Amino acid sequence: MDNLVASNNTDKHMIPAIGIDLGGTKILAGLVSNSKLVSKPIRIPTPKGPENIIKALLDLINSLQQERIVFGVGIATAGIVNPETGEILGATGNLPGWEGTALKHIIQDKTALRTHVENDANAAAYGEVHAAGLGYKTCVMMVTLGTGIGGGVILNGKLYRGAHFAGGEIGHLRISMNNERHCTCGLWDCWEAFGSGRGLVATVRNLLVGVSEEQTRLAGLGDKLNVEEIIKAAAEGDILAKRAIFQYHEHVAVGMSSLCHVLDPDSFVLAGGMSKFVDLNLLKELLADRTLPRIAERLEIHPSILGENAGLVGAGQLVLDEAREVKSVGVAG
Amino acid sequence: MDNLVASNNTDKHMIPAIGIDLGGTKILAGLVSNSKLVSKPIRIPTPKGPENIIKALLDLINSLQQERIVFGVGIATAGIVNPETGEILGATGNLPGWEGTALKHIIQDKTALRTHVENDANAAAYGEVHAAGLGYKTCVMMVTLGTGIGGGVILNGKLYRGAHFAGGEIGHLRISMNNERHCTCGLWDCWEAFGSGRGLVATVRNLLVGVSEEQTRLAGLGDKLNVEEIIKAAAEGDILAKRAIFQYHEHVAVGMSSLCHVLDPDSFVLAGGMSKFVDLNLLKELLADRTLPRIAERLEIHPSILGENAGLVGAGQLVLDEAREVKSVGVAG
Repeated sequence: MDNLVASNNTDKHMIPAIGIDLGGTKILAGLVSNSKLVSKPIRIPTPKGPENIIKALLDLINSLQQERIVFGVGIATAGIVNPETGEILGATGNLPGWEGTALKHIIQDKTALRTHVENDANAAAYGEVHAAGLGYKTCVMMVTLGTGIGGGVILNGKLYRGAHFAGGEIGHLRISMNNERHCTCGLWDCWEAFGSGRGLVATVRNLLVGVSEEQTRLAGLGDKLNVEEIIKAAAEGDILAKRAIFQYHEHVAVGMSSLCHVLDPDSFVLAGGMSKFVDLNLLKELLADRTLPRIAERLEIHPSILGENAGLVGAGQLVLDEAREVKSVGVAG
Repeated sequence: MDNLVASNNTDKHMIPAIGIDLGGTKILAGLVSNSKLVSKPIRIPTPKGPENIIKALLDLINSLQQERIVFGVGIATAGIVNPETGEILGATGNLPGWEGTALKHIIQDKTALRTHVENDANAAAYGEVHAAGLGYKTCVMMVTLGTGIGGGVILNGKLYRGAHFAGGEIGHLRISMNNERHCTCGLWDCWEAFGSGRGLVATVRNLLVGVSEEQTRLAGLGDKLNVEEIIKAAAEGDILAKRAIFQYHEHVAVGMSSLCHVLDPDSFVLAGGMSKFVDLNLLKELLADRTLPRIAERLEIHPSILGENAGLVGAGQLVLDEAREVKSVGVAG
C-alpha cells in the first residue's frame, strides 16, 4: 500500500477520492475533496447479485478515473462492515448474497487504488459532520428518518463503530414497553417502528380504528395509505392527519432524548426523506420537555447539507482522512 | 505543576494516589495504586456545608499522607463536574451549596498535590473497568442500579464525558411513552423510575392495586413497603413479589438493550445495591430477547469488583493516569 500513498502525500488534499454509495436500489458515485462533491454525481440502478455489483463498481471507478487522477476509493454499503478488513460481515435483505464479500481486497486488487469500505449510515454521518465543519465537536449524532431510522455517531471527528461494528443502530432503541409495534428487525417497539415513515403510517392506522370516511378521507385509502397522502391531508387541514404528525414529532423526540442522556451530544444532524416533514421548532420544544436542561439547552439540531450524497461524500472523505492518519502516526510512507 | 511530576516520573506506578469519594451521606477515602485500594479505607459522615466538607477532605488527605508519600489526590463527587477546571458545575440535592466550588484549585493550593476532580459515577466506572482489566475494550458501560440508576461510559479505556459533562446520564433514558411514572429529575418514564430500587417499589405498588392483605403480606405494609420487604417476600414464595421481581428484570433489560443499540458495547459492569438481587442468567435472556443478535451474542455482563470503593479507586487512578498521559504527550516534565 505504501507506494500508493508516498508520491502524492503533500498535495493529497487537492487530489480527490472516488466516493460510492451502494444501496439496495441505486448506486451513487462521484469525486470527493474536502468533504464536498467535486464532480457531477453518477446514478445507476443496483444490478442483481454480487458479481454484477462488483462489475458495476469497477466500471464506475474506471469512468471516474478518466476525469481526474484519484487518490483512492471509498465505498459506503448497506450491511454490517468491518472497515479494517473491508469485508461485509452481514448483509441486508436489499443486497442478497452480499454477506462475506471481501470488498476492499477485490477493489484494491483490481484497481490498485487505496480502498476503504464503510457501512452506509456511518459514511453518511461522517460526510455530514465534516461537510458542516463539526469535526471538532465532542459528539455529533446523525439521525436519518426514512423508511426506517438509521444513524451514526461521530466523536471528536471520528466514527464510533462499536465493539462489533454495530454501534449507532439507533433505530432499535426501545421507546415503549407495551409490545404494540413489531419492528422489521424482529424486536418490539423499536424507535423506528414509530419515528420512521412506516411508523407514521402505523400511527395513522391506529388513529383510524373506528373512524369513517366521512370523518377523514384517509379512512378510505386502505392499502394506498402512505406518507405522501398523510402529509397532503394534513396540509388540507385534516384533523386526524395533523394529530398523527404531532404524535410523529413526539415519537422522534422520545428517541432523541434517550440519545441525549446516553451521549450528551453537541449536535444532531437530521437527515432522510422524513426529515423534510419535521417542524424543527416543534421538535426542539418536545425534545426540551423530555431532556435534562443541562443537555437540552445547549443542543443544536442541524438539517442535512449533503442530502442523498452524504454516503458517497463520507466514503470518499474517509479514504482521504484514513491515509492522512496512517501517515501522521508514521506507519505508511 | 511540573515539579510535582518530574522527580517521581519513572516509578510513579509504585507511588499511590489518594482516592476520595464524596457522597451525600458519607465520605470514603484510601490509597490507590494499579486500580486497587492499597490501604484500609476510611469512612466518615459527610459534614454539612461546603466549608466543612473541604475541611474534612483536607483532614483526610493529611492523615493519608502520614502513611505514605502520595503522588496526588483524586476526588469523586456527586454533581456535574468539569474535570479540566475541577469545578462543580451543578450540585445534587444531597450536597447543598456545593455548586460553583472550585474544588481542584482549593485542594491543590492547600496541599500542593496534583488534584483531579471527577463526577462520582464516572470515577466509579473508570475504577471498575480498569480493576477488571477491561481498559483495552472498545466500549464498557457501567450500570449502577441503586436508589436511582447511574452509569458511566468508558471508550478504549478512557472516560467519555459528553459535550456538557452530562454523558452517561443513562438513568434518564426513556423507556415508555405512557407518562406513567414521574422521575425525581422531573421527566416522565425515565429508566430509573422502573429499574431502580424506587422503581421496584413502584412496580409492587402498581401490582397491589385491588389486592388484599390475605393475598399478600405486602398489601399491609403501607409506607413501610421497601426493597428489603419485597425481596424477603419473594424468598418466602409470595407470588406478587416474585412477579414484581420478574418485571424488574424486564425493566432493567429494556434500558440495557437501548444502550446496546446506541453504543454496541463489549461489556457491561453491573453495580449498585440493587445489582445483588439481579439474576444474571435471567437478565441475559431478557436482554437477548430485546437486542439485535449481532450485539447480544457477544456481550458480556460483569458484576462489580470494587463495590462501594469503586468511586475512590477510580478517582485515585484518574490522577495517576492523567499525569502519565500529560507526560506522554510531552506537556509536563
